[in-house]
Amino acid sequence: MRGRQFLFVPGPTNVPDRVLRAMHVPMEDHRNPDFPNLVLPLLEDLKKVFATKTGKTFIFPASGTGGWEAGLVSILSPGDKVLLSRFGRFSHLWGELATHLGLTVEIFEEEWGSGANPDRIAERLKADRSHEIKAVLTVHNETATGVTSDVKAVGAAIAAAKHPALHFVDGISSIGSLDFQMDSWGVDVAVAGSQKGFMLPAGACFVAVSEKALAHGMESGKNHRVAHAYFSLTDMLTNNAKGYFPYTPSIPMLHGLRESLNLLLEEGLPNVYDRHHHLATGCRAAVKAWGLKTCAVADHWNSDTVTAIVVPSDADAVKVISHAFRRYNLALGAGLDRLAGKVFRIGHLGDLNELMLLGAISGAEMAMHDCGIKIELGSGVAAAQASFQKRTRPV
Amino acid sequence: MRGRQFLFVPGPTNVPDRVLRAMHVPMEDHRNPDFPNLVLPLLEDLKKVFATKTGKTFIFPASGTGGWEAGLVSILSPGDKVLLSRFGRFSHLWGELATHLGLTVEIFEEEWGSGANPDRIAERLKADRSHEIKAVLTVHNETATGVTSDVKAVGAAIAAAKHPALHFVDGISSIGSLDFQMDSWGVDVAVAGSQKGFMLPAGACFVAVSEKALAHGMESGKNHRVAHAYFSLTDMLTNNAKGYFPYTPSIPMLHGLRESLNLLLEEGLPNVYDRHHHLATGCRAAVKAWGLKTCAVADHWNSDTVTAIVVPSDADAVKVISHAFRRYNLALGAGLDRLAGKVFRIGHLGDLNELMLLGAISGAEMAMHDCGIKIELGSGVAAAQASFQKRTRPV
Amino acid sequence: MRGRQFLFVPGPTNVPDRVLRAMHVPMEDHRNPDFPNLVLPLLEDLKKVFATKTGKTFIFPASGTGGWEAGLVSILSPGDKVLLSRFGRFSHLWGELATHLGLTVEIFEEEWGSGANPDRIAERLKADRSHEIKAVLTVHNETATGVTSDVKAVGAAIAAAKHPALHFVDGISSIGSLDFQMDSWGVDVAVAGSQKGFMLPAGACFVAVSEKALAHGMESGKNHRVAHAYFSLTDMLTNNAKGYFPYTPSIPMLHGLRESLNLLLEEGLPNVYDRHHHLATGCRAAVKAWGLKTCAVADHWNSDTVTAIVVPSDADAVKVISHAFRRYNLALGAGLDRLAGKVFRIGHLGDLNELMLLGAISGAEMAMHDCGIKIELGSGVAAAQASFQKRTRPV
Amino acid sequence: MRGRQFLFVPGPTNVPDRVLRAMHVPMEDHRNPDFPNLVLPLLEDLKKVFATKTGKTFIFPASGTGGWEAGLVSILSPGDKVLLSRFGRFSHLWGELATHLGLTVEIFEEEWGSGANPDRIAERLKADRSHEIKAVLTVHNETATGVTSDVKAVGAAIAAAKHPALHFVDGISSIGSLDFQMDSWGVDVAVAGSQKGFMLPAGACFVAVSEKALAHGMESGKNHRVAHAYFSLTDMLTNNAKGYFPYTPSIPMLHGLRESLNLLLEEGLPNVYDRHHHLATGCRAAVKAWGLKTCAVADHWNSDTVTAIVVPSDADAVKVISHAFRRYNLALGAGLDRLAGKVFRIGHLGDLNELMLLGAISGAEMAMHDCGIKIELGSGVAAAQASFQKRTRPV
Repeated sequence: MRGRQFLFVPGPTNVPDRVLRAMHVPMEDHRNPDFPNLVLPLLEDLKKVFATKTGKTFIFPASGTGGWEAGLVSILSPGDKVLLSRFGRFSHLWGELATHLGLTVEIFEEEWGSGANPDRIAERLKADRSHEIKAVLTVHNETATGVTSDVKAVGAAIAAAKHPALHFVDGISSIGSLDFQMDSWGVDVAVAGSQKGFMLPAGACFVAVSEKALAHGMESGKNHRVAHAYFSLTDMLTNNAKGYFPYTPSIPMLHGLRESLNLLLEEGLPNVYDRHHHLATGCRAAVKAWGLKTCAVADHWNSDTVTAIVVPSDADAVKVISHAFRRYNLALGAGLDRLAGKVFRIGHLGDLNELMLLGAISGAEMAMHDCGIKIELGSGVAAAQASFQKRTRPV
Repeated sequence: MRGRQFLFVPGPTNVPDRVLRAMHVPMEDHRNPDFPNLVLPLLEDLKKVFATKTGKTFIFPASGTGGWEAGLVSILSPGDKVLLSRFGRFSHLWGELATHLGLTVEIFEEEWGSGANPDRIAERLKADRSHEIKAVLTVHNETATGVTSDVKAVGAAIAAAKHPALHFVDGISSIGSLDFQMDSWGVDVAVAGSQKGFMLPAGACFVAVSEKALAHGMESGKNHRVAHAYFSLTDMLTNNAKGYFPYTPSIPMLHGLRESLNLLLEEGLPNVYDRHHHLATGCRAAVKAWGLKTCAVADHWNSDTVTAIVVPSDADAVKVISHAFRRYNLALGAGLDRLAGKVFRIGHLGDLNELMLLGAISGAEMAMHDCGIKIELGSGVAAAQASFQKRTRPV
Repeated sequence: MRGRQFLFVPGPTNVPDRVLRAMHVPMEDHRNPDFPNLVLPLLEDLKKVFATKTGKTFIFPASGTGGWEAGLVSILSPGDKVLLSRFGRFSHLWGELATHLGLTVEIFEEEWGSGANPDRIAERLKADRSHEIKAVLTVHNETATGVTSDVKAVGAAIAAAKHPALHFVDGISSIGSLDFQMDSWGVDVAVAGSQKGFMLPAGACFVAVSEKALAHGMESGKNHRVAHAYFSLTDMLTNNAKGYFPYTPSIPMLHGLRESLNLLLEEGLPNVYDRHHHLATGCRAAVKAWGLKTCAVADHWNSDTVTAIVVPSDADAVKVISHAFRRYNLALGAGLDRLAGKVFRIGHLGDLNELMLLGAISGAEMAMHDCGIKIELGSGVAAAQASFQKRTRPV
Repeated sequence: MRGRQFLFVPGPTNVPDRVLRAMHVPMEDHRNPDFPNLVLPLLEDLKKVFATKTGKTFIFPASGTGGWEAGLVSILSPGDKVLLSRFGRFSHLWGELATHLGLTVEIFEEEWGSGANPDRIAERLKADRSHEIKAVLTVHNETATGVTSDVKAVGAAIAAAKHPALHFVDGISSIGSLDFQMDSWGVDVAVAGSQKGFMLPAGACFVAVSEKALAHGMESGKNHRVAHAYFSLTDMLTNNAKGYFPYTPSIPMLHGLRESLNLLLEEGLPNVYDRHHHLATGCRAAVKAWGLKTCAVADHWNSDTVTAIVVPSDADAVKVISHAFRRYNLALGAGLDRLAGKVFRIGHLGDLNELMLLGAISGAEMAMHDCGIKIELGSGVAAAQASFQKRTRPV
């Protein structure tokens, strides 16, 4: 097949040419005296994306899953109770990981298509007078259902409950794409992945940790902590202080991150978030024009990085995805777990513009149409175009 | 602006990632003993694209314009008369170049939107009993107007006239994209450019020359030929025979050409031509749905590599193009010379697929709509989609 | 500074152009139906490098340190006793990591400059009638001292002791460069890193696990194992079976690994090992000509991937390294821990040839000379040249 | 063969990674409104390398040979007499090219190993009272013999003769590597190639033309000029004025040139020239240590970009070159024409440093030694090292 594939899964996302070029470098000694000139500004600029001034940022050579692990093992102790709101595949997996690491996970099941419930969390924390709950775990953007939780409201709930629980946030498919304010929202540990809004290949995760969480981790460490080594924040801190790493980092990823941060900061983070909202709005207009619905149980849950589209009950989303891939060179995201066959997902995060998304929407239309779903060709495109045209500035 | 630009000028075209990668090479000595292993198969495989078994192929480090020059100066003598059909910017420029090189150019003006007229050519040649006319010059695909001449018919006309004139064909925006049969159509000199169907950057031109033309050139050389040096076919032939070049070639372009030829031959030339026809058909369906017309005075003239779209008389195509570029990151081709302001062009050749073209069509729609042209949003996309869906195989 | 840096640390090593090019790819969905066509052959071809037919191979998106962790946490239980021979920085770090993960590490201190002592290990195992020792940990190639242990002999010692202990081998700076025979040497867990003999950037580690070790891990898992999630062999096995991964892999690293394996298998592993031996022999000839010694306490300990050179007692190796870097653009490895200031190291593994090494040797000569060490300029080069010339085939 | 080839021909030279990366770009429309932002600064910065403030610079998509042609055809008229000093392959070829283009070439044969003779030129010009001679052609750096002419002295000779002849200089293997001062030396047309000091692949040539030469060309044009089209300076000037080209330029080469100029200007041109002199001095020290001689008939003729080494009369330089290539992966330049078999050449221009050159010198030593030439191994390296050590700053 000729031409470029239209990659519209919610990660890995398209890596911009500038970033790919920046990664095409000869190796160098990661202990050389010039190396900190590369590393230290990366750690500083990451803070801008997390919007933290008082926290520390970390770069691990690992997938986002490793970021989850790094956050938990370095801060908490075996058996610690954590409160997790679960409403999709990735919140589910995060809970499993925490369990494997020896934590006790109390789960709030929320309806798939909704997100974390701040009131419920506040209530539970208020009831927890013994402060048994050490951390609240919130998935900012549930990639599986295309839903964004109100992290700020959860933070406010914790604060309102006057509970010392730390707030851990999975921002893998949000940070760098959706507004995120670590300090002002009171987030203690935030995890981002390279292959989403950072527009890099997978293979690096970025973790930001508040002073409170670091102090908590030091305290845990005095007694006992979850056994760990690779994901040690302490070893990282010690080495990072001088601009080095405890083990060999991926040189290309560091150079790629440099360029990715350049891109984000050149565009301006508010503009980045605005662009994602603009594209997502167009995508949702297309869904509406098709006469279909997203997974979100109410509009305000809809994510600006991924749209999960429910196909008619007599249709098979798996076939649509497979046909889109084979016939139109369009990669759509599958429905996961209980959504398998019922949903396909259009990721619209990272290095994207309107015409790329319109190409994907037109491909989704043809794929659905070919699979017998009653869709008027061009209808979604027209709706998205009308949405896009309202903006006079280029994205 | 984030995301990739939609490049829809009729050249330079998108360079596939495989080709860009293949060009990212360290240099080597172009006189080393292994170098012919790269060069000789290139010259052979080029013959497949030109569809010649008896002709010779040449690679010049120059733009397509250099290919025009190479063909003329090595074969003809100063003052020789050549017959050129003129129906657009590029046939115009070719004639000017021939004049600058000291040839006498007899011009057949054809209506812009049409192409070479085989009957007229046949008639003229029959009348030329003294064989004053040394060559017939035919632009296969006039990029300016989106029109394809019937080169086979022109060749048949020359043959029918039993006239010894050589047939020179400008295939810069056709060869590698449209069916071209050098030997069976009786073409003597054919010129292709790297930055069109060959999916390479500009900087190389490919010339194929028949035995008859080479013999003619040898004969001219005995007396006097147009003064030349850089574009000498003779020097090339001597060096190419052993797998070398008379001067330093562009190593990246040779490696890029290797990969480009791999791509064309892996896909299969008939499939390449079919893909271009398929995409062009969708594009023309969109134009029709918009209620607009192409430059072509009759449907059969429409080119499968570029569509020249006439905007309504009260609209300004320059504004549409500028707005598409600035607002939607879409590069469209301008109307040239007398078509300036009246026409914009969508190039659809090279490394393209349906969704890329649908993205471009959607962008053209929005740009026209924003500029006040009465276009129903989504209408062109829907028509192109319907056209594309008829095909069950991926492009 | 112009020209390429001479990178002669023992990792990261030079990434060949072919590999860098192979990594310069657009992203794709790691769940797409074609993805296993990339993944499954990688896992198979890795077995060739480890020389295992019955073991399983694993690719983790992590540095080599992560490979250490993956091997331990998935197989052993908290509190398990492991026997580690320690004779340099990296064996030291491995022991620390095991301790952090909750294992009980019994240490055999060996003289720095020597390696694992099979007789001592055999004796200890024979004395361990209760089979308290669950694993023997052997560093194949101690990068810090430039010493290679006899892994085959350690394996034979374990076998001779008729002890069920598993044999874990750190092959990070050996596998892909030095002869390694997992099955026939009775190795149970072997760890390799991407940034050494595999000629890739850091960011992937490769682990091979024997059937015996996997069975042991299953058994441990029934009771309790070291808490872990990211480095779970079980999750990997389940997903790898179909050609996928439990979390997002690094697409560029997988493509890079494909090319790296192509390079190793095209050259032929015995030829790869022979080339490393050839280059190392030349390097050691240079050291001898300089009148200096390596760290190795006897010649047979000398490593074929890295040479640790002891500077005269009145000289400062740190100055030599710094001067080489700043003045000659030559990156040498530092002496670590107790060797700091006493030793500099020349890594000679991965994508290297004779002239590259001669350039580095000449640079080391000048750097030492500039720092006041009495070295005859050209003497080391001449000795290495004489060594290289004995070979008639190109490396 | 593993590792990088040592490329020591005098062009193509090594392309720095930064330049290769800069060339790895998607295509764009060369008529788009942003394109001049790329083009205009290139033309300006080229003036810095030529050291001209009043001249115009040109970029042609062609090899250096095309630059020769562009200079001649746009300025001179058929039959014009030009005076060429000939002392090697490239001055020979330039004369042939001028002849093919219809000029009358008067040749001053100079001994191979020497260069242009300013006194002889002055004398001839003084005798030419009718100003029949329209141009003096000087090869600045004769790549075949490793000899540099004194262009400044030739310019002074023309001035002293008070003769209106234009001064054409072939600076293909000098400009960007050796000091060149177009304005102050009174050069009228200077030609440079991309694949030498500009550290780019072949495929672009850079021509600088003085106001006097341009005016002369305009005058010639009124009557008759050598027939030409592709290499028209007039067309270039018209288009360049707005930041465009008369035909499609090579986008990657323009981006590569941007980065190449950045590299040259960041290093500082005087430092670039100094680095070349430093490396050349080391290379000549090696030759002397080998007991061999360069082609130059006197030391002051020796070029700082290429050293032509005469092998002993009973040795065959062809064998040395072939053996160096096959056995040591070292590309040396061959002796050309009458020097074939007698000479091998080490190019030392472009992106090079000391260790790279020492690697090449060590390879040349081994290759000569293997071929039976009595060379003490390490002797050339030691001499070059001693030469290099005198410098305290890094190159």
